[in-house]
This record gives sequence, structure tokens and C-alpha cells, in this order.
Amino acid sequence: MADSDLGERVGRRARGGGGAARRAERTAVRMEFTRYITRNIPDLEILNAEALEIIEANAETVLAEIGVNFVDNPAALERWREAGAEIEGERVRIPRGLARQLCATAPREFTQAARNPERNVVIGGRNLVLAPVYGPPFVRDSANGRRYATITDFRNFVKLGQMSKWLHHSGGTVCEPTDVAVNKRHLDMLHAHMTLSDKPYMGSVTEPSRAADSVEMSKILFGDAFVDENTVMTSLININSPLTFDSTMMGALEIYAAANQACIISPFIVGGAMAPVSVAGTLTQVLAEVLAGVAYSQLVRPGAPVIFGAFVTSIDMNSGAPTFGTPEASQITLGAGQLARRLGLPYRSAGGFTGSKLPDAQAAYESANTLNTGLMAGVNFMLHACGWLEGGLVSSYEKFVMDADQLGALHKLAAGIDMSENGQAMGAIREVGPGGHYLGCAHTQANFKDAFWRTNLLDYRPFETWEEQGAPDTMALAEKRVAKLLGDYQPPPLDPGVAEALSDYVARKKAAVPDAFL
Amino acid sequence: MADSDLGERVGRRARGGGGAARRAERTAVRMEFTRYITRNIPDLEILNAEALEIIEANAETVLAEIGVNFVDNPAALERWREAGAEIEGERVRIPRGLARQLCATAPREFTQAARNPERNVVIGGRNLVLAPVYGPPFVRDSANGRRYATITDFRNFVKLGQMSKWLHHSGGTVCEPTDVAVNKRHLDMLHAHMTLSDKPYMGSVTEPSRAADSVEMSKILFGDAFVDENTVMTSLININSPLTFDSTMMGALEIYAAANQACIISPFIVGGAMAPVSVAGTLTQVLAEVLAGVAYSQLVRPGAPVIFGAFVTSIDMNSGAPTFGTPEASQITLGAGQLARRLGLPYRSAGGFTGSKLPDAQAAYESANTLNTGLMAGVNFMLHACGWLEGGLVSSYEKFVMDADQLGALHKLAAGIDMSENGQAMGAIREVGPGGHYLGCAHTQANFKDAFWRTNLLDYRPFETWEEQGAPDTMALAEKRVAKLLGDYQPPPLDPGVAEALSDYVARKKAAVPDAFL
Repeated sequence: MADSDLGERVGRRARGGGGAARRAERTAVRMEFTRYITRNIPDLEILNAEALEIIEANAETVLAEIGVNFVDNPAALERWREAGAEIEGERVRIPRGLARQLCATAPREFTQAARNPERNVVIGGRNLVLAPVYGPPFVRDSANGRRYATITDFRNFVKLGQMSKWLHHSGGTVCEPTDVAVNKRHLDMLHAHMTLSDKPYMGSVTEPSRAADSVEMSKILFGDAFVDENTVMTSLININSPLTFDSTMMGALEIYAAANQACIISPFIVGGAMAPVSVAGTLTQVLAEVLAGVAYSQLVRPGAPVIFGAFVTSIDMNSGAPTFGTPEASQITLGAGQLARRLGLPYRSAGGFTGSKLPDAQAAYESANTLNTGLMAGVNFMLHACGWLEGGLVSSYEKFVMDADQLGALHKLAAGIDMSENGQAMGAIREVGPGGHYLGCAHTQANFKDAFWRTNLLDYRPFETWEEQGAPDTMALAEKRVAKLLGDYQPPPLDPGVAEALSDYVARKKAAVPDAFL
Repeated sequence: MADSDLGERVGRRARGGGGAARRAERTAVRMEFTRYITRNIPDLEILNAEALEIIEANAETVLAEIGVNFVDNPAALERWREAGAEIEGERVRIPRGLARQLCATAPREFTQAARNPERNVVIGGRNLVLAPVYGPPFVRDSANGRRYATITDFRNFVKLGQMSKWLHHSGGTVCEPTDVAVNKRHLDMLHAHMTLSDKPYMGSVTEPSRAADSVEMSKILFGDAFVDENTVMTSLININSPLTFDSTMMGALEIYAAANQACIISPFIVGGAMAPVSVAGTLTQVLAEVLAGVAYSQLVRPGAPVIFGAFVTSIDMNSGAPTFGTPEASQITLGAGQLARRLGLPYRSAGGFTGSKLPDAQAAYESANTLNTGLMAGVNFMLHACGWLEGGLVSSYEKFVMDADQLGALHKLAAGIDMSENGQAMGAIREVGPGGHYLGCAHTQANFKDAFWRTNLLDYRPFETWEEQGAPDTMALAEKRVAKLLGDYQPPPLDPGVAEALSDYVARKKAAVPDAFL
């Protein structure tokens, strides 16, 4: 596998026009980006057929006999009643097989368009799309430590994402801009993704009206007709596990599904608290919840693009704290992937998870465990692939670039083994022979540039050189890389008319209501 | 999977007698240990059948047409000639199929006995035996930094290994005791493993006479008859890649094989230097080298226990430095596992590899990548599973306990998913229902103690508590754990007559020749 097969290209800055675009072209730095991963290696199938059938049968039992709650949502209950479910109060009991049957209209894979069409992603199949951390109220960096996140931090993380070669998606709430009113921050967040990045992004889910704003702003960016005909957002709909669908999240889902925009329908589970303390029990509940949520999306609009989500971790039974990168979480991630494939849905799970408070060895062990598991589990959309710290409370600048570097290794591993004649290298083995050295041989000369994945961060220098140059640890290397990426950052070109219309929309919506901080 | 199924037991200290044993019993601390891993999850098969057949055919071509060199070893050339190989100088060309045919007498799995029979390990099949770092001339710890290793360090690492619950093997050269003469240090190393640990250990390979000492000392420890009938050492025989078998290593192999003691026959490859710059080419060379080495062991003694080794990493094409935890190394580790299984041999590869100079995030990412790959690759014997730093130049005290903690996660992941009725937890899902909480439910109460893997190192405390208590990073946590383990250490009981005979042997051999430091 040569790196060129990975689809690395220099961004051509083909779109956009006017002064901003010309300025960008004059000062253009090389912007590398990489196509999403298409796996050429198998998945790890941790559950055998018998185990899968047991879990699937149990999930049907959960839906039929226990049921799920759709809270404060009479319209949803009515949709379910019409579809054939049994309604009792807010409880929805779904006859065996019905949810799975409803899920059949959801697409096996879909394209999410980016404003730069070279950065479109295809979610599903053998693909893996990598998106950054989502949700933390705090940020941390070496120089300033841990503090509440601001809109400046938010913009910095979007810029880091744009500059990260191995990241395919700009994400959503890369951190919570806590200095902006709660009822307005979605506008600033969307504006940042739309203007500072040309990668695909996520919409707001914290209120149905904010989902509607996300659709409106996307129409300004892409044009009305394009948004009607294409998926331009993938948004995160969490299920209130166990077995509860609240009206805020369902309201956002209804808006997105109706607009043919994609949603991740994702149980949010700390095992032992929101699901049974066992792996098989947790998988059963995950499947039941996803079946109900995806089926509901198809009741809203058959064919609406959705993703089978599983955000699952375990709990430290001593302290009650959530833990990450643990073997039980890996088993669930692997098993849920099998369940998603059998259901014929794209799968979202894993990430660079850690419970550590610092981007230290603990953070790296836990994140590497999760990243590797995600690749082996057949994940199609990996949220939190870089930058996650402290159980999701913190977006870390340094960890963002550390994880983002490791994502390159995932690309290479997933590409599989080149079995071409060049890959077999029999000529080289003949040329060098017993006791020889490969560094100078013709095959090495012809292939060395693309043969091995190259880090942009890690240190391989000999001890003495490294020590003379200050003996930097990974944190120090990452701090330097963050500064370089933010320094090199240039905004992708955007039609000035579109830019102005987006700013106008944000200003108008902000002016229309007073700030709310709750 | 309950932890009890993992075979955790409190060491009964059943063997040994006399004063030392009584003293140990009086002051006994709880010594936990864990049986070797028996995988209940599948391997990741990265190569398809066609690719495997190509590599196997190419390896036969290498042996038949290029051949291997057996250097300074007329007896080996004679053995090969008799077996049907074509000899030209030191070059041995092995007709297609012959090496594979000779390998057939090597056992698919074997038991390595420990002096405490509860710690015997079965190497091969679905098992994974974990052994510590091997070979570094330097050590590093927080307080004292990087320095040449001494016999005191060596003993400390053996003690840490004995105290590490998830480590099944005491290993070999856990660091080089550079303060002891080169021609005598094997005696002190073996003495440390035999007296300070009751786990299985490795013998010396740096000269045939030192291999003979290893056998002699083992006979003192286990008794002559026991060693004649049982495998009590697994030793590391490196191949001088490409395709070269030197007389020192082959001399040690000859002694061990003749004594029915196990050897790992292991290409030592930095890809791009000692093997082609491509993964498929490297796998071809690895297979050819192992076929020749294992076949040779069977010429020395048919049925001698051997392990298919693959120590393979890649090179940083900028600096020439070896790199670790890279995707190419993972691909080779996975592919070589398939080749080993098709050959019907136990497989040695992977470890907690890193090129980092510090036990920092780089070290942890790289090590976690390698440890996870080793589990998925079906490795049966993992050398360097803990404590490796700086490309193998340094044994790190803190990294030893960091990695050793992660080995517990491998045990739990490998155990697979409990599909019993209790594991399915349908009663719990019914009991809790939509919107409920699992912490208090009967199933959680009954299972929480064994449900999740527990770290002995990592920090899950809330930020505020952690900060109040000094905001320790993983390094600081590890430093504390090293001190605790060394403080709690107690030697396993040993018959005083045996202890005295071992000390006498060491003293006698040391007195017989002058010190040599080269």
C-alpha cells in the first residue's frame, strides 16, 4: 500500500471566489488531507452466531415485554400506535420483529456532503470516518491548565480539525463555548464549522428550534435545493438509557429525519448504572434501544439516514466514576459492531477515550485501546477520535494532536497488506541475500518514501540528541505542534456572499431573543 | 466471565521447607497470581488464503534458490547435508517442502514447568503467556533517571515480576547487570530468577557454555531426572537476519534442543534494514528464516520444543532509528501469527514496545498498539510484555508496572463474553425498566465485584479530589506502585539445601575463570 493509495491530495481550493479566495490563494500553504478510511482488513467477530441470536432474541423480548418510554411526546406515541405498537401511558411495547422490520428502510450507507466536495464522506460499508471530540465544557492546554471553554477555544479546535490531515470530519460541539448564551451558542458553533472548515459537520440537537437553525444555515451554505436533495449534517441523538427517549432529542431527530439529514441514534451508557453490569446484558439493551430509535426515525421519514450508535463505557465500582479503554468496553464495542452489521446499518462507536485528567500515559493507553478496538469493530463513524480528556469533561489541545497523529496509523493498518509483485519484494530478497543489508537495495530506494507510516509528532531521535535538545516528553512535542498548526492555519475560501448571509443569519437570530444561560 | 474463572488464586507456598519457608509463612503477604491466558475470542486474520499461499510459496523459493547461511558451524552443515539440503560453502539451500516437513516433529504446544507447579505454563494453542522485558543495558526510574543497569536492578525487576499478578513468566535478561563480568553475569541472573521468583524463566544464550550452565543450575533446582523429562526453560535464539544463523546462537540452540529445553527461534528484524521495506516481503523472509531454524532444531533432536518467533519492527526512513507500535509492525505481527498457526507451532511476538525515551504518552500509545495487536494476532508467548523503553535500550521501573497493569485488561478481553443466563441479565433489565437505575438492582449487587476489570494503577478520581491530592500523572502513580511492590516483596520459599547448592555452583564457576568484560 503506497500512501498515494490512501487518497492523500493537496486541497485544490477550487471553490469559492472573490477577495477572500484570492487572498487565500496568494498565501496558500500546503493543506494535506486524506480520504476517509476504507478497510481492507477483516473485522474481529467476538460473538459467535449463537450468541448473536440470543442477544437479538433478548432485545426483541425487551421491546415486546418491557418496552421503551417516549416522554412528553404524544405525536411519537401516535406514530407508534399507528405502526402497530401497544401504548400504555408513555410506554411503547413493540411486537417482536416490528422494530427490525421498520429499520429496513434506513440506508446501509449514505454520503454526507461537505462544502468542499473533495471532503464528502461515505458513512457505512467498509468505511471509517473520523470526527473529533464532542461536548466538553472545559478545555486544557499546557500553558493555561484546565478552564471553562470559550468560543475562542471552539474556533481553535475547529481550526486544528481543519489542519489535521487524518481527520475527515469537523465534528460538532468540539467544546462548549460557555461564554456564549446557551440559547445562542449553537449559532456561533455552526458558523465556525461552516466558515473555518470545509469538512463535513454536525448540527445542533439541544432543542428542536436549534436543529431547525442548523438546517436553515446549511441551506445558506449549500443552497436550498442541495440541502433538500443531500445529507449535509450528521447529528448526535442520545438515548436516555435505559430505554427512554426524551422529547428534546426526539424533537431534534424529527426535524433532521424530516429534512433527510442524518442522525446517530446512540444509547449513552455507563455500564452498571444505565445498563446491566454484564456485557451481554448491555449489548441486549443497546440493541433494543437502537432498534426502537432507528425504527422511530423511519416512522418519521422512511429512508432517513441514521447510524447505529453505541456510546458505552463501564463504571469503577469503587468510586462510581466512569472508566475508559477497559476490556469490557472493548467487548461491547466489538459485539455491537456485529449487531449493527446484521441490522444493515452504519455503526458509530469508540473514540480516543480516557478517564485521565492529563494527556499522560494513562490517557494514551486508554485511547489507544479504544482506537484500535474501534478499527477492529468495524466502526463507520468514530466521534471523539481525537482531543477527548477526563471522561469527556475536557477538550485537550495537546491530546487533540496526539490522537490525530495516531489516526494516521489507523489508516495504514486498515489499508491491509500489499500483495502485489512489488509488495512481495522477492527481487529485493534475492539481491540482498544472506547477511546483506536492505537500506541500499533498489527495492528500498524505490519504495522507502511511502513504505512506512510517518508520525508528525512522536520522537525517534537517539537519546543523546534528544537530551541535548531539552528531552521533550510527548506533551512538550504536542504543545509545539498545536502552536504550529494554529499558526499555519488559513481559512478555506468561501463565497463572500455566502459568508455575509451566514453572519447576517447569526446576528438576526441572536438579536431576536435575550440571552439565556440555562 | 467472573474474575475467579481467570484462575486467580492465592499462592499456597506449598513447596519448599526448613527455616526460610517457615519465615516466609510467618510473614506471608497475600501473593496473587493469575493463570496464563486462554483465549476465548477469535484471532484477527489479516491475510486471506491466497495471500498466505503466496507467502508460503515465496518462502520455499527463498530457501531453495537463495538459501541460508550457517556460519562457522561445520556440524550444522553436515546435519543439513544428511537431511537432503544442498551445501555450498556456508550456504544451505533447502529443497522445497523439506524444511516444513522437518518442522512437523516440533510439538504444537508444550508445558514449561516452574518450580512452583501452580505456575507452570502451557505454551501454544489458544494460550498466551506473558513475560517481561529482555535485554536492555540501561535502566530508568523517576528518581535516578537513565543509567547503566546493575545486578541490583536485575534483582529488583525479578522481584517486580514475581509481584506482578498478570505476569506469568519471570523472563530472562530483564536488564543487563553491567557491573558483573560478561562471562559470569549469566550465573547471577539465573540465580536471581531461581531464588527470587517461583515463575518459569529463560536460560542464557550468549555462549554454548552458558547454555550448559543454565541446564546444570536447572538440574540443581528441579533435580536431574525432572529436567531430563520436562521443559524447564524457554530461551531466546535470535536469527541474524537476513537469512544468517551464527554459531553462538546455534550453539546454544543445539545444547537446549539436545536437552529437550525450549527455544524461541526468532528473526530479529528492523524492516527496511534487515528485511525488505514491504510487509509481504518481510513476512516471506520471516517465514523462510523460522522454517530453516525450526527445521534445524528438529535435526538436532526431533520433537524438541520450539516457538515460531517474530521480532519485527520498522525503521524511520528519516533518521534510521527503529520505530515501534507502528501499523506495519502490527500487520507483520498479525500475518506471522497466521503463518505460525498454519505451521502448527507456538508463536512468539509483540510486547509493550516503544521508541520513546520516557514512559510518557508516546510510550503508552505505542505499547498499547503492540499489546492489543499481540492479543489479536494469537501470540502464545509475549516477551517484553512490560518494562520495555527506548527501543529496548532501557528497562523502566515505572513502565514495568504501567504495562503490567494493562496486561490485566488483556486477560479480561481475551476471556470473551459471558453468555450464561446471569451474563444475559434479562432479570436486571426487567427489574430496572425504562428510566431506572442499575446500581442498586439485585443483579448488580450480585455481580459488581467481578464484573469489571480493575486497575491497580490508573486514576479515576474526580478532578477536584485528584488535584487536592497533588494532581499525580501516571508516572507519579507508577513510581508509588514500584515502591509498594518492592516493599511488599517476599521471596518464595526454597529448600535451603537447594539454595545452598545453587550458591555453591555460582561461586565455583565464578572462581574458576578470571573476569572478562568483553
